[in-house]
Amino acid sequence: MTEFPQADKNRVRRHPERGAYDKDSVHQIIDTALICHVAFVQDGEPFVIPTLHARHDDTILLHGASSSRMMKHVESGQRVSLAFSLVDGLVLARSVFSHSINYRSVVLFGQGEAVTSKAAKLVALERFTERIMPGRWAEARQPTALELKATSVAAIPIEMASAKLRQGPPMDDDADLNLPVWAGVVPLRQVAGTPVRDPKQPDGIPLPKYILEYVQDRQ
Amino acid sequence: MTEFPQADKNRVRRHPERGAYDKDSVHQIIDTALICHVAFVQDGEPFVIPTLHARHDDTILLHGASSSRMMKHVESGQRVSLAFSLVDGLVLARSVFSHSINYRSVVLFGQGEAVTSKAAKLVALERFTERIMPGRWAEARQPTALELKATSVAAIPIEMASAKLRQGPPMDDDADLNLPVWAGVVPLRQVAGTPVRDPKQPDGIPLPKYILEYVQDRQ
Repeated sequence: MTEFPQADKNRVRRHPERGAYDKDSVHQIIDTALICHVAFVQDGEPFVIPTLHARHDDTILLHGASSSRMMKHVESGQRVSLAFSLVDGLVLARSVFSHSINYRSVVLFGQGEAVTSKAAKLVALERFTERIMPGRWAEARQPTALELKATSVAAIPIEMASAKLRQGPPMDDDADLNLPVWAGVVPLRQVAGTPVRDPKQPDGIPLPKYILEYVQDRQ
Repeated sequence: MTEFPQADKNRVRRHPERGAYDKDSVHQIIDTALICHVAFVQDGEPFVIPTLHARHDDTILLHGASSSRMMKHVESGQRVSLAFSLVDGLVLARSVFSHSINYRSVVLFGQGEAVTSKAAKLVALERFTERIMPGRWAEARQPTALELKATSVAAIPIEMASAKLRQGPPMDDDADLNLPVWAGVVPLRQVAGTPVRDPKQPDGIPLPKYILEYVQDRQ
């Protein structure tokens, strides 16, 4: 199956031409976003919390302190909705009404479950660490049994998902095209700056190549 | 009142030292974030949707197509939760367990209401347009009566809010400080690129100064 199923809940209704349901599009946005927003219902009320995520095939992994409200909720198997959003540009149209932003987003639905085995938790933590910085897992000090216990990991198999994308120039009405107003796109992107060494770090530990390359790839 | 009230729902429980409830901190994060994530409950299930926002004092403004599920819901006065998140850096600790990200986020709660008067909708649209690009409202073609009708605007007075921030170097255990692992922060920030003119734009319309300055301020 290369597409997520469509239903009323995840179908892109406004601007259906911006919707995508193929797994490649959905996975790519999830993997590019560093954080996601998790929505859940408690006592009938909505909550939304930003958090780091990782992906394993069609399953989203979340982690957090065992005491966290969000983790307890996700592990309990109640329904959640997650959003992953990337802002790519400001769309400056000739008319106020046609102003927009270029973006890539995914909204998905599912039910979480606790990941409890030590081996599976370790694999998940490797994914989280490598998401923050590829190459880091092999170098950083591995989790102790106590640290592993203090960390909850939840897995959310994706039940339904849709991507929504807007790219390209403004779409003004034909009647507006000759207005004397500059129209176009201001691209936005996230860049990495010069790494700042921990002041507590003794001299003599050079910046690793994988961090240097990460920064160079994002300038 | 310079602080939002604290309650179980919005109190920062994990890492309480990262929590802030003063209005200045909350407003600044809301205003810096270009988009927010809106969570709501429909048929008992959570939904989360990314969208542009604007702020007027302690009220959040949202807009969208009159037909949108999210706008209909927010306008109906049911409870919503909104999150605003900025990612500032990757925190590379000596231990896997202490890896983190630097961020600024706000989570708030409230109930929406429809903004229906033409004058109030126009003021809201000015705020949205100026959020995308300061200076744009005065130049772009103003909304027609039909366009105004096709746009829904909702106002959400902030009932409760909290900011959560993590800044600065990694916080490794003392026992890990002498490990031979580079530790520090890779700063991340959003930058603006060279504006791309709409291919449909005739020659002879120069890039306005306010756009040039916006881009120069964000390089």
